[in-house]
Amino acid sequence: MSSKGFMFPRTATGRASLLPDTPWHYSGTMLTLEYRSHPDRVIELLPDYLEPADEDPGAVAVIWAEWQNCRDDYSEILDPARSQYKEAFVVVRCKYQGETYSRCVYIWVDTDYAMVRGHHQGYPKKLGSIWMTRPITVGRAGPRLEVGGRFGASVSAYDHKLLHATFEITGDSDHAGFVNGHPMLHNRWMPAIEGDGSDSLYELVTMRAYEAEVGRCFKGDFELQIFDSPVEELTRLEPIENIAGYWREVSQSWRSGTTMRRRNLDEIE
Amino acid sequence: MSSKGFMFPRTATGRASLLPDTPWHYSGTMLTLEYRSHPDRVIELLPDYLEPADEDPGAVAVIWAEWQNCRDDYSEILDPARSQYKEAFVVVRCKYQGETYSRCVYIWVDTDYAMVRGHHQGYPKKLGSIWMTRPITVGRAGPRLEVGGRFGASVSAYDHKLLHATFEITGDSDHAGFVNGHPMLHNRWMPAIEGDGSDSLYELVTMRAYEAEVGRCFKGDFELQIFDSPVEELTRLEPIENIAGYWREVSQSWRSGTTMRRRNLDEIE
Amino acid sequence: MSSKGFMFPRTATGRASLLPDTPWHYSGTMLTLEYRSHPDRVIELLPDYLEPADEDPGAVAVIWAEWQNCRDDYSEILDPARSQYKEAFVVVRCKYQGETYSRCVYIWVDTDYAMVRGHHQGYPKKLGSIWMTRPITVGRAGPRLEVGGRFGASVSAYDHKLLHATFEITGDSDHAGFVNGHPMLHNRWMPAIEGDGSDSLYELVTMRAYEAEVGRCFKGDFELQIFDSPVEELTRLEPIENIAGYWREVSQSWRSGTTMRRRNLDEIE
Amino acid sequence: MSSKGFMFPRTATGRASLLPDTPWHYSGTMLTLEYRSHPDRVIELLPDYLEPADEDPGAVAVIWAEWQNCRDDYSEILDPARSQYKEAFVVVRCKYQGETYSRCVYIWVDTDYAMVRGHHQGYPKKLGSIWMTRPITVGRAGPRLEVGGRFGASVSAYDHKLLHATFEITGDSDHAGFVNGHPMLHNRWMPAIEGDGSDSLYELVTMRAYEAEVGRCFKGDFELQIFDSPVEELTRLEPIENIAGYWREVSQSWRSGTTMRRRNLDEIE
Repeated sequence: MSSKGFMFPRTATGRASLLPDTPWHYSGTMLTLEYRSHPDRVIELLPDYLEPADEDPGAVAVIWAEWQNCRDDYSEILDPARSQYKEAFVVVRCKYQGETYSRCVYIWVDTDYAMVRGHHQGYPKKLGSIWMTRPITVGRAGPRLEVGGRFGASVSAYDHKLLHATFEITGDSDHAGFVNGHPMLHNRWMPAIEGDGSDSLYELVTMRAYEAEVGRCFKGDFELQIFDSPVEELTRLEPIENIAGYWREVSQSWRSGTTMRRRNLDEIE
Repeated sequence: MSSKGFMFPRTATGRASLLPDTPWHYSGTMLTLEYRSHPDRVIELLPDYLEPADEDPGAVAVIWAEWQNCRDDYSEILDPARSQYKEAFVVVRCKYQGETYSRCVYIWVDTDYAMVRGHHQGYPKKLGSIWMTRPITVGRAGPRLEVGGRFGASVSAYDHKLLHATFEITGDSDHAGFVNGHPMLHNRWMPAIEGDGSDSLYELVTMRAYEAEVGRCFKGDFELQIFDSPVEELTRLEPIENIAGYWREVSQSWRSGTTMRRRNLDEIE
Repeated sequence: MSSKGFMFPRTATGRASLLPDTPWHYSGTMLTLEYRSHPDRVIELLPDYLEPADEDPGAVAVIWAEWQNCRDDYSEILDPARSQYKEAFVVVRCKYQGETYSRCVYIWVDTDYAMVRGHHQGYPKKLGSIWMTRPITVGRAGPRLEVGGRFGASVSAYDHKLLHATFEITGDSDHAGFVNGHPMLHNRWMPAIEGDGSDSLYELVTMRAYEAEVGRCFKGDFELQIFDSPVEELTRLEPIENIAGYWREVSQSWRSGTTMRRRNLDEIE
Repeated sequence: MSSKGFMFPRTATGRASLLPDTPWHYSGTMLTLEYRSHPDRVIELLPDYLEPADEDPGAVAVIWAEWQNCRDDYSEILDPARSQYKEAFVVVRCKYQGETYSRCVYIWVDTDYAMVRGHHQGYPKKLGSIWMTRPITVGRAGPRLEVGGRFGASVSAYDHKLLHATFEITGDSDHAGFVNGHPMLHNRWMPAIEGDGSDSLYELVTMRAYEAEVGRCFKGDFELQIFDSPVEELTRLEPIENIAGYWREVSQSWRSGTTMRRRNLDEIE
């Protein structure tokens, strides 16, 4: 019998697959904080066939997102334990064959399907504890979506705090920055089971969402703290200068991407 | 030195107290599902000095709430790991000295401060895993706040599923039902350390929030499933007939309540 | 109907009570790290009717414990989600009416029943993420219970790291230190619902376990790091000098304690 | 610059890699429950180039494991939040080119590194909440490693209970069953980013641990309950007849495996 399922486990029915067939739909909110780090610290994160962006090559975006998501039949929406998750990620830009791309270099999520969905897309996802303040419409326990509204956000993993930020709205915005706005350019890697330093899967892929929709969008000022951990190296991306922060409502759907480059297993980097 | 702190631990500075001084502020969303159970199953949950409500004594409300909350200086809002929590609870009505009250008979939350804050207020809080679908404003991954919007909600504790519900908006509403609308009438109990069956603390208290504000409010149809667990008895409150469901935005502040009755330690029930 | 249950919720059957009737049985392992802090920092944690210990009044024990536990019918043992938990706590000594007692001033646990059981016993329990290395009997992934065996331990709460320690066995021991060896002397507090600064429950209680049994027991050297948090004040108990560390297997049962002092509600401290 | 790291994220230093370089060391305990299901339900889980085992083709092992683990420098052992995890998995047997293999068809773990380490090894790992009773050496709160010792074990995922088992020791054993005793034969799959139904990575790999060591080992009787979930299909592996259960201490190290078969991207299954 041919086993079924978009992702493992592959079974007779496909029901147990960790990921359903695409497309996948997402609705949520994002907090984007852009700053300048040393360009060398961005460049050192790029494989040698990628170049830094022409302008502002040290620009970094740290992004928190809180999502509701579902497969094409919306079944997760009525079982919210399977439809809600949070993530936080760090994006830089790079150039490949003359085009500028966004590239996620670090990311933490809090569910298994979002983690492996990311691996499928080349996001280097780990698990973490992620928090971001929500805007409110009644009462006093939170910020309003208006000038002066103040938000907090944090990430930790294995009980080590990694990031903490505060953000204050200063006005409306018609965009959410420039670092995460290009098509993504990611690697998909799986080391060979032989453990000989080669990769069984080594691809450079690009993708972008479709039907992306933006709701309310604001800009603001922020403060960002980056902490050390024995198994992270975020502090290398030290902030030199804040650019700007953004909060927005956003939705998107995702179906597929394009393989740009694939390495034979015998090829040496 | 006199130790400080609203709640334990009480220390020299009071900073470590599990609860800050009142008032406490809450903003969030609530899903309320009202149904009729056997009146006897409601009555058996009341101490013998409380009577059932005159009308519809078997009415039960199962409520999910997702909160952001803070003390009076709003400090938690910028550290959202300390300001967001969810809870699910079961409310019935009772009468005492001729007045009708609401009374929470079961409740699960997911943070320690919300749990002990509840104990202070006479809510019999346990920990649980609580989920409720959020409405969306962009994209496809969730319901809109409009007729036909569909939500899910669940509670589990110690890996035993306790409740699962679905709700569909059928129209606007100017209220959120009648079961949870009275002042609360709760017991605060602490068994004596001697373990002799007596209580060191035995109070009947009443309270209500102040500055309660209601945002958008909808009514709808629902389906509710109640599951068994070795350490719960929710299935005794078996639904006979659904009344109605409600989804609303809500905020409130809470400062204090009133002790209605206090039992001497020697008194026998 | 008279409602049943050792602890809330009290119901017709008592099955849903967060705590079963005593006795409660515990089997586990404990890592105890004793050090000297400034005596003033210990004294400031004591209500004014308690005195510091005569000797070594600045002595502090930081203790990690990993437990399996059950009620008298052992029912939790076959549902281990309900029988296993970890805790970490800070103990000092004090004197009352000429006797020396141990007193827990800070404590974190990871289940609701252990938290509220602690509240019943006067432990000021909060929730936390607690870890301690386990000894091994086969292979390489951990320490053996022998000289040179090295252990780690940590506590965090609300994504703020609070404590991290390492411990290395230097030899056998026939005891586990002197700070946590006395009967416990705790307060049980519940602020009045009126929020007027008075307490509805204000007791001084003492207790100790019965049928305590000690298995293998070792002493060793340790390093302890204490971190700050917006809602803790552990760093006030700054270590000046390490005394010694201990690792041991231990079991105990607990049934009840004795009320030493009870304050009338009108009494002023 | 050439990016470093066994697994993503690959960086300038390699420190942030979700997995360290092999070898990896494990010490722990395993509970293995073997039963017979319908052979067709085992066969339907195998790709069509794998055959069922010659004897007892419907045999299934459900296994719980609690591990401490570390990389080759033992660094995780002193930060136990990064060294302890639990997993539960379902193993069947199959034949390939005349040899009999074990094959994991379902598995849940509770840390990200163990999950992705499994993906590297072809284990179809998801996240779950996993519990297994621990034996005790002092006191009453658990089983002893002796005849009559009783254990419980459970798995749930997304708040849906999947498995619950009880096990009672009936005697010593010099083995832990036959289903999980062969080299593992796993697939490593990664669907192409194009979402066209093809796989970018499609390998059949085999591996086994080295330096495996077994400590105390017992056999016993068991009861196993399998529950349904919207995103699992474990109930298809319905037990017809129990074979036997085993509890043992075990350690192993893992370095690498061997690729048996690799599919070109254009090949059709």
